[in-house]
Amino acid sequence: MNPASPSNPRTHVEPVAWRDGALWLFDQRLLPAVERHVECTTSAAVVEAIGTMVVRGAPAIGIAGAYAMVLAAREAWQRDGTRWREIWQADVTAIREARPTAVNLAWAVARMLETAAGVATGDPEPALLARAQALHADDLAANHRMGRLGAALIAPASVIMTHCNAGALATAGHGTALGVIRDAHAAGCVREVFATETRPWLQGARLTAWELAREGIPVRLVTDGAAAHVMRTQGVSWVIVGADRVAANGDVANKIGTYALAIAARAHGARMMVVAPLSTFDPATPDGDAIHIEERTAEEVTMIGGQRHAPPGVGAYNPVFDVTPAHLIDVLVTEAGIIERPDRARLAMLATGR
Amino acid sequence: MNPASPSNPRTHVEPVAWRDGALWLFDQRLLPAVERHVECTTSAAVVEAIGTMVVRGAPAIGIAGAYAMVLAAREAWQRDGTRWREIWQADVTAIREARPTAVNLAWAVARMLETAAGVATGDPEPALLARAQALHADDLAANHRMGRLGAALIAPASVIMTHCNAGALATAGHGTALGVIRDAHAAGCVREVFATETRPWLQGARLTAWELAREGIPVRLVTDGAAAHVMRTQGVSWVIVGADRVAANGDVANKIGTYALAIAARAHGARMMVVAPLSTFDPATPDGDAIHIEERTAEEVTMIGGQRHAPPGVGAYNPVFDVTPAHLIDVLVTEAGIIERPDRARLAMLATGR
Repeated sequence: MNPASPSNPRTHVEPVAWRDGALWLFDQRLLPAVERHVECTTSAAVVEAIGTMVVRGAPAIGIAGAYAMVLAAREAWQRDGTRWREIWQADVTAIREARPTAVNLAWAVARMLETAAGVATGDPEPALLARAQALHADDLAANHRMGRLGAALIAPASVIMTHCNAGALATAGHGTALGVIRDAHAAGCVREVFATETRPWLQGARLTAWELAREGIPVRLVTDGAAAHVMRTQGVSWVIVGADRVAANGDVANKIGTYALAIAARAHGARMMVVAPLSTFDPATPDGDAIHIEERTAEEVTMIGGQRHAPPGVGAYNPVFDVTPAHLIDVLVTEAGIIERPDRARLAMLATGR
Repeated sequence: MNPASPSNPRTHVEPVAWRDGALWLFDQRLLPAVERHVECTTSAAVVEAIGTMVVRGAPAIGIAGAYAMVLAAREAWQRDGTRWREIWQADVTAIREARPTAVNLAWAVARMLETAAGVATGDPEPALLARAQALHADDLAANHRMGRLGAALIAPASVIMTHCNAGALATAGHGTALGVIRDAHAAGCVREVFATETRPWLQGARLTAWELAREGIPVRLVTDGAAAHVMRTQGVSWVIVGADRVAANGDVANKIGTYALAIAARAHGARMMVVAPLSTFDPATPDGDAIHIEERTAEEVTMIGGQRHAPPGVGAYNPVFDVTPAHLIDVLVTEAGIIERPDRARLAMLATGR
């Protein structure tokens, strides 16, 4: 398995990698200042890394979760070769619940459980590792396909806005939203990208700007609050984002702030594109109201870089995802094709086609 | 002149004060960590303080500008008692242009020039100082009147969102938007205030939260990107903000992010209230397109607390105000009365009534 984008070996980004029997994660909390990889040799270490955002981005945490299942199986098998499935169970639950909003974790766990069910006797690791690596490679292939499909919609000289980081760092490589932007740029169709900084974690400023700048794609940062003004004054024609979960009716959970961008985009005639692999689709979630929105600590808002800027005693409400209703989404791009004006019926057809 | 709110002596905030022949500014860049006052003995020092945001907020910089005119007149008079008006002129221009978007600076300069024109002979300082102190006292009185007028519209148990800091710190005291919130809270009508942190300067987190918390008004911070989600899920009934300039047609320039809040408020049925004294109204500006929107350095976005978090070579577009069109504003509160659904005709009536 090689998750590098063959077209961009120079700018290869590998957020999740399996090497020498361990999982290596590119620590996204330290970028762009420090490029450090973290080695995880236990499933608990992976669960911790997902919870603390060493690795983030729905597809990337799904893949990390798949490898965590391999490590959990190894640990259980080493403890007891006959009762490993029982021992495994607590780790499986912990992996599935490492973060609540992205469905990709549950999806990856379900895929790995299918493979585990097919292991009759002996060490489960080889079969599970092969499956995790297949999921990993499939995600990269899906991103390249989505990139081509989405980029075909982008007219020459487009000004594009993106939010958070739905890039190579958030996936097996290439990226969902940034995959489309990369391919549109390669086709000569991107005049400029505005990346919202994406408080509180500043993924736009730290990660998206880093990914785009190193490939020479013109990018300027804007504060999240400036996005509507930028749409009004800078000729933004597309807002392109990823997703953490797509409900059965087409409602999309994504990084906090996406919903505000979708409302503003509609008010300005900019089109809203959500780029998400099928692993992000959750037919079991009827609509956005049923999606569990993760809330993280107030300190992520009241402190920056270890320094508190808010007054003592003042708290924060820190939901880290929001729901964009399907009616505000113009195009949903998946590896199985494009859905314009997504709704329950169109998504059901997609599910049937899987 | 005493700019303290008589009802809240305990929580007295004095952003601008004239003491012992000098202007003292409460350094708003350091709050809430450090409470420090800066002494300005020259008009150039005041211009510098306005440009570097030691003092900010449209009414407060108007008042600081008025006192800068006093200092400039003193300097010119000391240099040449007969030609002081000529010498003064360069400082007058510098004061008027210390920041471009808030009209209050130009308004205060015009008022002070009226007074200067009435000075026949002798030292101009006493007359100018008296006028500056009158403008200062008038602003405080206007805030208290606007607070009462605006608060009368707030129903019991309201959840209110505010942006940036339109508080005592931004004015002579009491505040415009926060004056309304203070009075609504005193009337028992505020369940909770959500303060947007307001990147890049974090005035919401540093200043608004500080002002509200010290008076026991319940406040929680949210990121700017979270505002639309908060409106959808937390029952926000009012968004209340200040203004830096109100054009003749009712378009409002205010802190970057206000426009996005207005769009989201309309989408959620929350009402949008802009609280601004008449000194903020500019009949000479026909509409929002004619308002000069200040752009500040990219470093305000790419760095926080002296630390750069964006990658090397990546820039930012940093407009620090935006324009909310009149049609998105439900109520405009002035000291001369309330204007519902503001438009050119209703604002013209207000001007006539001045």
